[in-house]
Amino acid sequence: MATPRVFNFAAGPAVLPLPVLEEAQRDLVSMPGVGMSILEMSHRGKFFEGVLQQTEKDIRTLAGVPDDYKVLFLPGGASLQFSMVPLNFLPRDGSADYIVSGAWSQKAVKEAKKVGGVKIAWTGEADNFKTIPAQGDLTLDPNAAFVAFTSNETIHGVEFKYVPETAGVPLVCDTSSDMFSRPLDVKQHALIYAGAQKNIGPAGVALVIVKDEWLKKRVDDPKLPTMLNYAIHAENGSMYNTPPVFAIYIMGLVMKWLLGLGGLDGIHAINQRKAAKLYAEIDRTGFFRGHSAKDCRSLMNVTFRLPSQELEDKFAKEAKAAGLDGLKGHRSVGGLRASIYNAFPEEGVDALVSFMQEFEKKNG
Amino acid sequence: MATPRVFNFAAGPAVLPLPVLEEAQRDLVSMPGVGMSILEMSHRGKFFEGVLQQTEKDIRTLAGVPDDYKVLFLPGGASLQFSMVPLNFLPRDGSADYIVSGAWSQKAVKEAKKVGGVKIAWTGEADNFKTIPAQGDLTLDPNAAFVAFTSNETIHGVEFKYVPETAGVPLVCDTSSDMFSRPLDVKQHALIYAGAQKNIGPAGVALVIVKDEWLKKRVDDPKLPTMLNYAIHAENGSMYNTPPVFAIYIMGLVMKWLLGLGGLDGIHAINQRKAAKLYAEIDRTGFFRGHSAKDCRSLMNVTFRLPSQELEDKFAKEAKAAGLDGLKGHRSVGGLRASIYNAFPEEGVDALVSFMQEFEKKNG
Repeated sequence: MATPRVFNFAAGPAVLPLPVLEEAQRDLVSMPGVGMSILEMSHRGKFFEGVLQQTEKDIRTLAGVPDDYKVLFLPGGASLQFSMVPLNFLPRDGSADYIVSGAWSQKAVKEAKKVGGVKIAWTGEADNFKTIPAQGDLTLDPNAAFVAFTSNETIHGVEFKYVPETAGVPLVCDTSSDMFSRPLDVKQHALIYAGAQKNIGPAGVALVIVKDEWLKKRVDDPKLPTMLNYAIHAENGSMYNTPPVFAIYIMGLVMKWLLGLGGLDGIHAINQRKAAKLYAEIDRTGFFRGHSAKDCRSLMNVTFRLPSQELEDKFAKEAKAAGLDGLKGHRSVGGLRASIYNAFPEEGVDALVSFMQEFEKKNG
Repeated sequence: MATPRVFNFAAGPAVLPLPVLEEAQRDLVSMPGVGMSILEMSHRGKFFEGVLQQTEKDIRTLAGVPDDYKVLFLPGGASLQFSMVPLNFLPRDGSADYIVSGAWSQKAVKEAKKVGGVKIAWTGEADNFKTIPAQGDLTLDPNAAFVAFTSNETIHGVEFKYVPETAGVPLVCDTSSDMFSRPLDVKQHALIYAGAQKNIGPAGVALVIVKDEWLKKRVDDPKLPTMLNYAIHAENGSMYNTPPVFAIYIMGLVMKWLLGLGGLDGIHAINQRKAAKLYAEIDRTGFFRGHSAKDCRSLMNVTFRLPSQELEDKFAKEAKAAGLDGLKGHRSVGGLRASIYNAFPEEGVDALVSFMQEFEKKNG
């Protein structure tokens, strides 16, 4: 008998929709009408070309991606995007503005500094990234090549509730941990990227949405490795080299699942409900304390502390034994973190809330 | 009822062992003892750490990888390795020797030229890559930073039957299309890489084996993107960022399957037998003509022509209808190509030989 599925609160790679896993399982040895596994298919074959086209189409529908934006599927995750963005768009003698709201924006800055100038438009480092800046807190350079920000910080659990206004300077967003978890206005961005392994698929592929007009203005660096060149990937429809076929196929199934839930409005309502239940419990008595400021709380990564580290360790251990897996927080924040991405089931949130109440009764 | 599996002669992504697919299918929704899909697992979790360690251990056993070599699992396929090798090992004012035996070595040269000097040690371009150079044909620079070659050329179907002697100059090998198809003497190389999607796994991961001593001598370029730095990946055990978890898991299953067949000697015997059957049929009457010179014939990619392009098209079409899929050759060579990698079943070769005989009878 198969091992019963646990509630998986991991920060990423993270839980996937059960119907997606079941469809992938059913067809894994022989795709209906093809007679081979998706894992064995030529990326130049008709079936996979259909998968790629349909996935792109569904992404366009889901997020209302305008026709003058390219949708790309690239290897290397968000970490490679940290380099590709400046290598393609930061003039070597220019500078870009980075909003630093957590560990992932820090990593992006580190890579950008290798390419050109970086100005820190705002940083939350002083209070260990508990907040998100208001528009008025940002120091923006009108001559910046672009402004980069991270819409949700996985480790710290803070999330932008607005899209920064940049007065015409191209805006780049790392949406790795909240992509397609809520409505997204693509038009406000020049480039959006997301490692797939939190909200939109398995590890091994990054989704990139980039404006044609901006792509044309990219830095012309003859030394840029072909694999790091967005224009080459765009010209070749993400098939310059062999793309990560299986990860794209799974992403396609996730897109269908999201459309079936009513798209981004539908999933947003579910995500708000899940997060509200959990934050309500955190705020109920003071036994639990949220890490992030209330108006910056992430719908995806709920970070919280207990009265002592001893209790935090006990909580994580007993929760795991009760089938609530992956709750230990990142070492840089401590405490607990419940990642409740799109595919995380509401019953799992309810189970955690009950567990928290029981735990407080016994240990409070 | 599931669609019956066809014989998949595709050049890559390519056929995988049926027992690997069946095991992956069985466990896809819930891994025994874990309760979540491998697609959902944190790369920092115990289960995947075990997969990574075991896969590395099996690779070391299989190829006799010495202890002073690192085994890495990286994104971006061989195409990203074309850039990573020179970016890490080619001094910007130095040069490297490249042996050009087909389309893939040409692509590697293109990327290396962006980094530093490239000397062509030999090229088979004049006769459309029908041959492999003999040792004496190579023009090697004793001061080269390294010598790079491609052990098997997927498109042209030519394969090195020896490892070039470089008089102490570090040797780099792209083994994407013959990795672990025959015995491999790792010690003769400074670095070996292979996109997984032909002999060792699905698309989405590249295997890199690199000598520690050479890694220490790498070019210290402070501008090198972190994701392109072998040393960082080595220090972090391929976990600097989220690795392609599922592709590594499947590669691990393929390694177990290879060990069960008696390792590289075992699979080599099978591969020799399969290729011999096919080449014997090609040579039988003169109706079929092999593309590559007889002493350079690939065990993996069998390229051949028919008397006319019309017959070639007819052959590919009728073969597909008979369940022999993916035989159309690459446009740069024309004709047919039967890719018969490790996992390609011998019954499929027998079926193709029978089909060839029937086809010749009717059309010869």
